[in-house]
Amino acid sequence: MFVPFGARDFLDRAAIVYPDRVGVVDEPDQPAAPWQGLTYRRVAELARAQAAGLDALGVPHGARVGVVSHNSARLLTSFFGVSGYGRVLVPVNFRLSRAEVEYIVGHSGCSVLLLDPEVADGLAGIDCEHTFVMGAESDERLYAFDAEPVPWKAAEDATATINYTSGTTARPKGVQITHRNIWVNAVTFALHAGVTDRDVYLHTLPMFHANGWGMPFAMTALGVRHIVLRKVDGAEILRRVAEHGVTVMCAAPAVVNAVLAAAESWQGEIPGRDRVRIICAGAPPPTRTIARVEEELGWEFIQIYGLTETSPLLTINRGREEWDGLDTWERAEKLGLAGAPAFGATLRVSGSGEVLARSNVVMEGYWQQPEESAEALADGWFHTGDGGTIADDGYLTISDRKKDVIITGGENVSSIEVEDVLFSHPGVAEVAVIGVPDEKWGETIKALVVLAPGAEVTEPELIAYCKERLAGFKAPTSVEFRTALERTATGKLQKYKLREPYWQGHERKVN
Amino acid sequence: MFVPFGARDFLDRAAIVYPDRVGVVDEPDQPAAPWQGLTYRRVAELARAQAAGLDALGVPHGARVGVVSHNSARLLTSFFGVSGYGRVLVPVNFRLSRAEVEYIVGHSGCSVLLLDPEVADGLAGIDCEHTFVMGAESDERLYAFDAEPVPWKAAEDATATINYTSGTTARPKGVQITHRNIWVNAVTFALHAGVTDRDVYLHTLPMFHANGWGMPFAMTALGVRHIVLRKVDGAEILRRVAEHGVTVMCAAPAVVNAVLAAAESWQGEIPGRDRVRIICAGAPPPTRTIARVEEELGWEFIQIYGLTETSPLLTINRGREEWDGLDTWERAEKLGLAGAPAFGATLRVSGSGEVLARSNVVMEGYWQQPEESAEALADGWFHTGDGGTIADDGYLTISDRKKDVIITGGENVSSIEVEDVLFSHPGVAEVAVIGVPDEKWGETIKALVVLAPGAEVTEPELIAYCKERLAGFKAPTSVEFRTALERTATGKLQKYKLREPYWQGHERKVN
Repeated sequence: MFVPFGARDFLDRAAIVYPDRVGVVDEPDQPAAPWQGLTYRRVAELARAQAAGLDALGVPHGARVGVVSHNSARLLTSFFGVSGYGRVLVPVNFRLSRAEVEYIVGHSGCSVLLLDPEVADGLAGIDCEHTFVMGAESDERLYAFDAEPVPWKAAEDATATINYTSGTTARPKGVQITHRNIWVNAVTFALHAGVTDRDVYLHTLPMFHANGWGMPFAMTALGVRHIVLRKVDGAEILRRVAEHGVTVMCAAPAVVNAVLAAAESWQGEIPGRDRVRIICAGAPPPTRTIARVEEELGWEFIQIYGLTETSPLLTINRGREEWDGLDTWERAEKLGLAGAPAFGATLRVSGSGEVLARSNVVMEGYWQQPEESAEALADGWFHTGDGGTIADDGYLTISDRKKDVIITGGENVSSIEVEDVLFSHPGVAEVAVIGVPDEKWGETIKALVVLAPGAEVTEPELIAYCKERLAGFKAPTSVEFRTALERTATGKLQKYKLREPYWQGHERKVN
Repeated sequence: MFVPFGARDFLDRAAIVYPDRVGVVDEPDQPAAPWQGLTYRRVAELARAQAAGLDALGVPHGARVGVVSHNSARLLTSFFGVSGYGRVLVPVNFRLSRAEVEYIVGHSGCSVLLLDPEVADGLAGIDCEHTFVMGAESDERLYAFDAEPVPWKAAEDATATINYTSGTTARPKGVQITHRNIWVNAVTFALHAGVTDRDVYLHTLPMFHANGWGMPFAMTALGVRHIVLRKVDGAEILRRVAEHGVTVMCAAPAVVNAVLAAAESWQGEIPGRDRVRIICAGAPPPTRTIARVEEELGWEFIQIYGLTETSPLLTINRGREEWDGLDTWERAEKLGLAGAPAFGATLRVSGSGEVLARSNVVMEGYWQQPEESAEALADGWFHTGDGGTIADDGYLTISDRKKDVIITGGENVSSIEVEDVLFSHPGVAEVAVIGVPDEKWGETIKALVVLAPGAEVTEPELIAYCKERLAGFKAPTSVEFRTALERTATGKLQKYKLREPYWQGHERKVN
């Protein structure tokens, strides 16, 4: 019997098996009822009401619904209210500039745009058929509690979400994630992370980012309680772990650092010792950081590797029996690798050293970019753009990034996008943007600039110029002025060589 | 990206991630090298060699390969060597009579038949193109280590195994399990049972029975060590748990009873306390048995419900947080229910009280029985033949069996099949075969017989008559002679009423 995999399956189960369990705890300062301490029965009602509300607005199945929001119960519910009933959710990074959001809304063809109150002013007036500022006021117009949603016949290869990601070109690309992608990612991720219905999940990861790595889905199916965290704050994370009995969280390396820093001045025993699993991706933290998680927090450190294009789970690295005899440092070194292929994923390294992947978690393609899609999926393999090696035991190590992407604080930044902005400055003749190692952010952005003859431009001026035109995290944190930039015979920048001096003494050339 | 789910995915991962881990420990008395203490690298080599051996025999992809065997490393490997490379495995109950095996081999059209040495004499000469007695001698002809198997392009809706089951008709039916069925069952089962690569699995369940509930696949993907158990023996199970550090096993209720009985005379502490999970299905054991598992063994009791037709996982019942405050007896009562729907399964109860299921674990159909398939899958739902109720919290209780199946010691027996045999006896005028409660076997088989005028037949004679013509477990354990059997106006036997007096004082009418 073929039953199409669907995003709603997750919430359907929670509503049947855990109807009275509190499934979602929103931020304490969020508008209260009906959004505080939601039982799974209530979450399902809200999702149904949201779908029926979209029906009432005349939004057809297949339409795109953009949402720009910090983590919140409303955002979490939208994964089901939108994708679960046949529309396509477009979760947008709330840190993007107005122009960037405008591009994404236009490119994906959103007919509905949901805005968090905090970003609403800056994004007011973006062209879209229906725009709502999420909150108590708009709930009345958005949620139709008295209507039954129009039935939607699920198709597992239909697009469930479009997640825009920075790439090698200036414009972000829309990663089409299907219902099947979501299903396989969520189930295998939960399996490898050992998720059970006794877990409590803290949303330290923004849900817009690769759909919160699938956790809105995986955790829901198993009746796990979601604790919403709106903004990352190390001490606040420790407080939530204590208050809600948190057992599992996902985190970019910068979040791991924030927790470790907060732990240093924490009064009393660190909460969650021998209980919390912290799942890290984006870039492997230094060995010392991993060792500190085990020693200073007493939490289990788990590493994964993946991309927005892979839903994201490609590899998992969790301490195994064979390593139990190792000391903390040796085990931390092992855990610093990207990991072993998740069930269902096949990895190989191309002749040029690029990591390739085959799996049901790999995206359908880039929204309305057939050429880029064909290139990324050439020969039936997804081309990650990362350089790596696979050891005899199947463990992947990422050693270099082929595409010009910088990962800073868990955010992907296209260096070309930043270069384009800098190049638009009349004082800039040549520019190369690279990632350099940074203790806190993994990598931080550095611009190497050759000034135009006679131009007088300072480092702060160029940084401010970028901040006006890009999301803050995409602006360089430092600028170095050069008289020339090394190029290949065909005139291409040799990023590899430009990066080299900054990475001396580091094992990898990416962080 | 669409990557077809395939039975080989499981072993592929184990061979990559756990190549040096001992994956399979065969019975100590089995022929030694190369079958003792197999690393996953070796299991993968053996599966490849078996596939290449089938190539060499000229057995095409899609051909059926029957195997009649007790649990063994060779049987386990065949799930991958046969199904993983495009043939269809037909695992046959080693307790069936020669005539029954003959029927299955003929009906499924097996071109290869693999026989365990213990059944080989009794099954010698069954008509099949290639027959091998598994063991060191035949390995040389069966396994081609020097050849690469002919590539097989997986199709997830292709049939991977055919599992014959007793039904409402006299002849067993071949349940077609697809690669997708296997994949979804294995992943969701492992997820709900909390399987990790630190588990050690004891094969207390025969692998022929619904493919060992998918454990040959699920456990392999996660690098779990398989401990083969050839014959169920309570004390031996406890010894293996101690010797191999077993953490998880599946068991029919009779096996649970065998372990509890062995524990009573066990010297010293029961092995596996606070470590072993025992997963039970077939029929829920009495509340007292469940409570004893927790109290006397200190093992976690998990109940599931499913059928061969559903791969089998439909529901799971595992102690949840909400029950932690209950006392042992109350919790045991909760755990006696069939359970909550597994992720991806949808259940409902029809107007007539029959449990219906929709899920990707539901079979494709019965092999070459289009009418029976259409009936079982009518209206897009699988008709379980079991009567039940679903509570407000989604938990299913099985209260009656609509189809005339008796489950005795975990084996399904068609009462009609037994009636047919008894009716063939010249002294029998009328007969009804029913299941009656039994402390050890859950149910045991009773025949109600009206003798032909003038006939003089005894109870032992009729039992012996059945044993000559059927597998031993299908023969009645008692015969009662009647002067008439109550029937409906249309002449049908009212099994429900015939069973009633034997089930007084029992909550359910099946065990």
